[in-house]
Amino acid sequence: MRIVSLAGGIGGARFLRGLKSAAPDAKITVIGNTGDDITLFGLRVSPDLDTVMYTLGGGIDEEQGWGRAKESHVVKEELAAYGMQPQWFGLGDRDFATHIVRTQMLGAGFPLSQVTEALCTRWQPGVRLIPMSDDRTETHVVVSDSQGRRAIHFQEWWVRLRASLPAEEIVLVGADDARPAPGVVEAIQEADVVILPPSNPVVSIGTILQVKGIREALTAKTVVGVSPIIGGAPVRGMADACLTAIGVETSAQAVLEHYGADLIDGWLVAEEDAGVALDGVRVVARPLLMSDPEATAAIARAALDLAGELT
Amino acid sequence: MRIVSLAGGIGGARFLRGLKSAAPDAKITVIGNTGDDITLFGLRVSPDLDTVMYTLGGGIDEEQGWGRAKESHVVKEELAAYGMQPQWFGLGDRDFATHIVRTQMLGAGFPLSQVTEALCTRWQPGVRLIPMSDDRTETHVVVSDSQGRRAIHFQEWWVRLRASLPAEEIVLVGADDARPAPGVVEAIQEADVVILPPSNPVVSIGTILQVKGIREALTAKTVVGVSPIIGGAPVRGMADACLTAIGVETSAQAVLEHYGADLIDGWLVAEEDAGVALDGVRVVARPLLMSDPEATAAIARAALDLAGELT
Repeated sequence: MRIVSLAGGIGGARFLRGLKSAAPDAKITVIGNTGDDITLFGLRVSPDLDTVMYTLGGGIDEEQGWGRAKESHVVKEELAAYGMQPQWFGLGDRDFATHIVRTQMLGAGFPLSQVTEALCTRWQPGVRLIPMSDDRTETHVVVSDSQGRRAIHFQEWWVRLRASLPAEEIVLVGADDARPAPGVVEAIQEADVVILPPSNPVVSIGTILQVKGIREALTAKTVVGVSPIIGGAPVRGMADACLTAIGVETSAQAVLEHYGADLIDGWLVAEEDAGVALDGVRVVARPLLMSDPEATAAIARAALDLAGELT
Repeated sequence: MRIVSLAGGIGGARFLRGLKSAAPDAKITVIGNTGDDITLFGLRVSPDLDTVMYTLGGGIDEEQGWGRAKESHVVKEELAAYGMQPQWFGLGDRDFATHIVRTQMLGAGFPLSQVTEALCTRWQPGVRLIPMSDDRTETHVVVSDSQGRRAIHFQEWWVRLRASLPAEEIVLVGADDARPAPGVVEAIQEADVVILPPSNPVVSIGTILQVKGIREALTAKTVVGVSPIIGGAPVRGMADACLTAIGVETSAQAVLEHYGADLIDGWLVAEEDAGVALDGVRVVARPLLMSDPEATAAIARAALDLAGELT
């Protein structure tokens, strides 16, 4: 079986671990969000790709959900001693090495997809991980405060401000010119089923869907989504702050409608959201809390079962 | 008193610490060798500038003589886990931060002299440290082995091969186009005395002297050199391997003749080299082993005394 999954960071990565466990013989291709990517200290950081890679490759800080296990922070402290900004982004020493390799390879002319493949030869995540695009895109967030109305990088809004300022707009800079990375559309076309994990529907899945050609390719396939909202609250993270910014209610129903019946064929919701319905979409209610690897695998299995019913 | 000193790495840096101690009220400008500079993992490394900066700023690994005290090596180990080369150059985590700052500033368009000044605002080395040139120069060494005759970067010859292959030629790539960094010639012109520490006469002092305009400026001044050779052996390092490459005997006499009486006015030699002589040069014999900070300060004081006799 060939499975394609789109993925953001922590939630997506944990779901993918469940998916691997639920379908150990499947060939899984993961299309990763790169809208969160940022250049820090001259180094290119791809937080979501790395979270997927580290999580599936056994290198993740399990408690934190991002960054490397057994991490130290000497480089970051030294950069701070030089007065370097920003100091609000958590880069550990082990993680720095990844960004150094990425930056060196990008500088040598390799596209991000080939860089990611090279990094994955070390991590052996057990899936094929492809960035959504080799073209540079960055999610920027429009906020207003005493300094006026301005666009800041998504990471500044998310990590530094903890989404404390309302997002007035969320814009994927570069979206108009971004093409899917090599292999992305082909993987979708060859897929038996596409699974959307409970990643952020705006700044993770929504970002990937903005890359021209990806949504179009997906509408031709059987797509099963796992609701990122349980009983009016995000599974994890601050998806509500993002949904509010684009005028979508924080509910399993509203997110389904936002994705649309042209995209979604099956929608997995939590048991408390059993009433969710949309014409042309088969909705199934199951326990959706990714409380541990077994529960997560069960959710992935339910998504695959739903896909099986639909095909 | 205004003192200018040229300097390579470990030996030069230790001598400079002695010079500061011997002339606490002097305004010391250090012209640093950048021929050893190398790009590793996409990061620009200036080993000699950093050794001077860390040594005078209290951050050096005293035992090793280079790199940072209390250093860890997580980034290097991680890079190796990615299969990155080279693995023979010792970069610690604290040191990496310096190279990240330097590379980011160079990438933003700042010349190396301004980058060095910025780094020194943290380290407060107590001297003005200027790279010999903002232009890129690199010392390459021509060697022959089973792979044939080829030029390799100085660091590969020095650090990886430990100078085990004879140097057939030592070439400063970029020397023809390199101009002295801003402030270098001015500092020499304004100096009351110029001191050459016992740094490597070929790949440290010799490299600096190859930058057009520096040697010319120096010949107009009172220059006192401290012999890097004691009784036929280098004070430290592998200066003999470099001297052999350029056809100069490893002796205090030969190095003095190589520098020339047009450059050198006073020459400090070890007591066992008391017979050294050259027309137009005043030679003084003193204990020259930099065995501890006090002994080193005494050598610097002897150099300053000799300069005083000459002016």
